[in-house]
Amino acid sequence: MKLSPKLAFLIDALRALPGVGPKTAQRMAFHLLQEGRPGAQSLVSALGAALVCVKRCRRCRMLTEEELCSLCASAQRDATLLCVVESPADVVAVEQSGGYRGLYFVLMGHLSPLDGVGPEQLGARELEALLGEGSVKELILATNSTVEGEATAHFLSELAARCGVRASRIAHGVPVGGELEYVDGGTLAHALSGRQLLG
Amino acid sequence: MKLSPKLAFLIDALRALPGVGPKTAQRMAFHLLQEGRPGAQSLVSALGAALVCVKRCRRCRMLTEEELCSLCASAQRDATLLCVVESPADVVAVEQSGGYRGLYFVLMGHLSPLDGVGPEQLGARELEALLGEGSVKELILATNSTVEGEATAHFLSELAARCGVRASRIAHGVPVGGELEYVDGGTLAHALSGRQLLG
Repeated sequence: MKLSPKLAFLIDALRALPGVGPKTAQRMAFHLLQEGRPGAQSLVSALGAALVCVKRCRRCRMLTEEELCSLCASAQRDATLLCVVESPADVVAVEQSGGYRGLYFVLMGHLSPLDGVGPEQLGARELEALLGEGSVKELILATNSTVEGEATAHFLSELAARCGVRASRIAHGVPVGGELEYVDGGTLAHALSGRQLLG
Repeated sequence: MKLSPKLAFLIDALRALPGVGPKTAQRMAFHLLQEGRPGAQSLVSALGAALVCVKRCRRCRMLTEEELCSLCASAQRDATLLCVVESPADVVAVEQSGGYRGLYFVLMGHLSPLDGVGPEQLGARELEALLGEGSVKELILATNSTVEGEATAHFLSELAARCGVRASRIAHGVPVGGELEYVDGGTLAHALSGRQLLG
């Protein structure tokens, strides 16, 4: 059936959200225009304001509306550690783990030559300048454990070597609380080759 | 970690969407502010415009930006049939089935006294006025097959009787293409008691 143009346009626009197909978009649109009207109004203003104000942190490329994000601006963080991640969501995940007190550098992607994503797009130059400042003693490579993520980590380790900064890669292995029986072979091989001596 | 205020506000606002929890909202926000910026811009304008323009059809209460929705305004539809559904999504679903050429009446909910939803909120008065016009010969009750949907259907069948209009309920039974073995008991009982003589 032909829905009214503005309704059809809204359903189409909602498909811009990740993981939202035609059926979900329709459900969202009907909800927003019925019982969800107050929420829809604040979504319009919140998204409008964020689109205008939110940009990247000058130092770490995290999304923020300030010049420097709250982490880079904080005096509480250990500036000798720089953790490189692929996305802002990864920053949130590492922060929530509670095990890290250093700073971050957000690549906003991974090396993917076929998609036109090279070192330039990932801010390799900014990272090199940052390492050149001399305060960073260790570059922690926390890119994803995918082919692209590994390639990106390899590239960045060479960049770190050029800058005379030690690079490290986060450990891959059996998840904490995981049962060996259900862990895939690749992870298990990693866990074995990365074993550490006790005592 | 503390995200910048406008970012946190956006993540919060996205939770107004049905079925979107904190993690999905965060993923959506980061996506909209990075590679999804053009889509985000059109979402802002589409949702803004829809909130201002889209209201209910004067006759059937379907969402539309005109006085009458495209179905009510059409001369091609059979005005002697009126199908009562709970939501605009149900109109779309029935239309897509292709098996119906009559008109609709959208309740925008079902009877739910505890939530303050009575006949008034479901447009019972408007429906009664519509039936009073005399063109509708059959009221098809296509509310959901839930306790509330059945109660609503029962209420509407009495309303139809008062107006001297024949009421019918859509058939419940085994889904087409469904295997008996996997159909739940309630549905199977319905399918048996609603059996029709052949030939």
